[in-house]
Amino acid sequence: MLVKFDELKAVTKKAFLNLGLTDEQAETCAQIHCSSSADGVESHGMNRIPRFAEYVKKGWINIHGKPELVKAKGAAENYDGNLGIGVINALFCGQRAIELAKEHGIGLVALKNTTHWMRGGTYAWKIAEAGFIGISWINTESCMPMWGSDTQSVGNNPFCIAIPRDDGQIVVDMAMSQYAYGKLGVYRLAGKDLPYPGGFDKDGNLTSNPGAIEESRRILPTGYWKGSSLAIALDLAAAAISNGLCGSDMDANNNGSCTGCSQIFIAIDPYMFGSKAEIQEMLNRRVKIADSAHPIDPKHPVKCPGESTIARRKKSMAEGVQVDDTIWSQVQAIAEGKDLSGHIE
Amino acid sequence: MLVKFDELKAVTKKAFLNLGLTDEQAETCAQIHCSSSADGVESHGMNRIPRFAEYVKKGWINIHGKPELVKAKGAAENYDGNLGIGVINALFCGQRAIELAKEHGIGLVALKNTTHWMRGGTYAWKIAEAGFIGISWINTESCMPMWGSDTQSVGNNPFCIAIPRDDGQIVVDMAMSQYAYGKLGVYRLAGKDLPYPGGFDKDGNLTSNPGAIEESRRILPTGYWKGSSLAIALDLAAAAISNGLCGSDMDANNNGSCTGCSQIFIAIDPYMFGSKAEIQEMLNRRVKIADSAHPIDPKHPVKCPGESTIARRKKSMAEGVQVDDTIWSQVQAIAEGKDLSGHIE
Repeated sequence: MLVKFDELKAVTKKAFLNLGLTDEQAETCAQIHCSSSADGVESHGMNRIPRFAEYVKKGWINIHGKPELVKAKGAAENYDGNLGIGVINALFCGQRAIELAKEHGIGLVALKNTTHWMRGGTYAWKIAEAGFIGISWINTESCMPMWGSDTQSVGNNPFCIAIPRDDGQIVVDMAMSQYAYGKLGVYRLAGKDLPYPGGFDKDGNLTSNPGAIEESRRILPTGYWKGSSLAIALDLAAAAISNGLCGSDMDANNNGSCTGCSQIFIAIDPYMFGSKAEIQEMLNRRVKIADSAHPIDPKHPVKCPGESTIARRKKSMAEGVQVDDTIWSQVQAIAEGKDLSGHIE
Repeated sequence: MLVKFDELKAVTKKAFLNLGLTDEQAETCAQIHCSSSADGVESHGMNRIPRFAEYVKKGWINIHGKPELVKAKGAAENYDGNLGIGVINALFCGQRAIELAKEHGIGLVALKNTTHWMRGGTYAWKIAEAGFIGISWINTESCMPMWGSDTQSVGNNPFCIAIPRDDGQIVVDMAMSQYAYGKLGVYRLAGKDLPYPGGFDKDGNLTSNPGAIEESRRILPTGYWKGSSLAIALDLAAAAISNGLCGSDMDANNNGSCTGCSQIFIAIDPYMFGSKAEIQEMLNRRVKIADSAHPIDPKHPVKCPGESTIARRKKSMAEGVQVDDTIWSQVQAIAEGKDLSGHIE
């Protein structure tokens, strides 16, 4: 169903307050989750709130945990997330990266021992909105077979990069699996095949049948061996730089999705070596040329990443935000003070 | 054919000297091109030397051009490559990134107006061998359709990341196209289909037939829309940070592959927040777990990126380096002082 953003946010904030968050935490989390859904990323927006509630109850997320400076060196800082709220820890660290970049041209913040940051692109978007190029990634528990394996052995470790542009940020937010499990479910329920192969069936054949992949759990890395290689490299780099857990450490802990994970936030001043006006002109020129590339289907012009998200955001703000009926009932129930323990997947 | 590394390098160095390079330049370029072939990356090793010779003669590469500091800010530096030798410019900038990281924890060097860096992974490998995490990328002229387009509208902009590990560096060197055009030719000549779809034929059907893709020029981005999105973002970021050319600027100049391109080099101290011993232990543990993931085929155990390259390097050093017969004749001819102008593709 469609829900007006303000109503969605008010109810969501109430739900977060009922989970024990402070007013400031609840305000921030409501804004982020509702904005992700408004941007069309429901899977990591409203849809994650019931699971967040479960994680708080299980003690996998410590709502009193705050990011704590462990060590700093030059343009880099290391924080312990103390298993606090992933969104709040990540927003803090993204902002610190911006501050470091203001001083040093580039800033890096390595966050360890944090929890799920929900929509990965959130932080690169924020960095770009502040006028900096943002790069961020996370390591997750194993949810994808490494290339050459038939068992889940690496995370789908999203990688995000954003470029600030006055006419609309350019943002890539890509998991290292070709499709998320959530997406497979959407296609299966609609009785449709995936547009392109998304994994292997239990007999090892590449398939576009979502149910067959859900059964085998053999989801396909983005670009076959390439996404698998990048996923393990991002895992190692995040754990090394933050002095935190790697993916297999999280597998051993088995405390839910991304609990204890490591995250990297890099901000870069895009105007330190050139004039802002000239660089913005170059970005607009390049995007315009890209967008005018001859389309396969004239009804679907080429778009640079981020442009469709901005269009979707405008539509959601005007017409209401798309929310799954069941999720909305659950969030409303939490907002009404009901205990949903055991009733959520 | 197989050629002993020392012989290969001696002849290659002589060829570079005959192209006008100084002894130091020729020594470095011979080492890099021969090492790339020894690592199994012939396409960007020995195979590129005849084209390099052509570019020098055409004036697209200025062998007297040297990297020149344009501006510096904190942990970041900007160089003008003056259309000098791409390999030498890039090696210099990778080393500067390491020096900046020693001081600031992270270092960024943005290089503009340079030429083809040959094998992209070279610089991330070097940064890792110096004990730092390396991240680098480049923008290229358009050689791949953006997602939704049927014409070449974005570069395949390789992205590289390397993690230093005493037991063997972990290195990803990935172009944003699923297969290079060079690889398509190899499969076509062998009369084989690609292992997985590599592009669209002229009728717009996804195909594994290499000849059909060479005909349509509709090579597939890595991971479909994902590789296309990352390619344009890397292009914009490289051009913005370096204050250099973007991909469409290179298309307009039309001076061969990567002439005038922008490159980014980032080095990160992986031990600034933890002990080297503990972080190396974590890396070894994670790689060991990844490599012991249950294989689809027990004859092909899972490997982390870089491990197979190191194995190939050892084999090449022991048994000789694989070199294409025609390429070897051409390099030998240049070493003998023959002018190959007009005889090279």
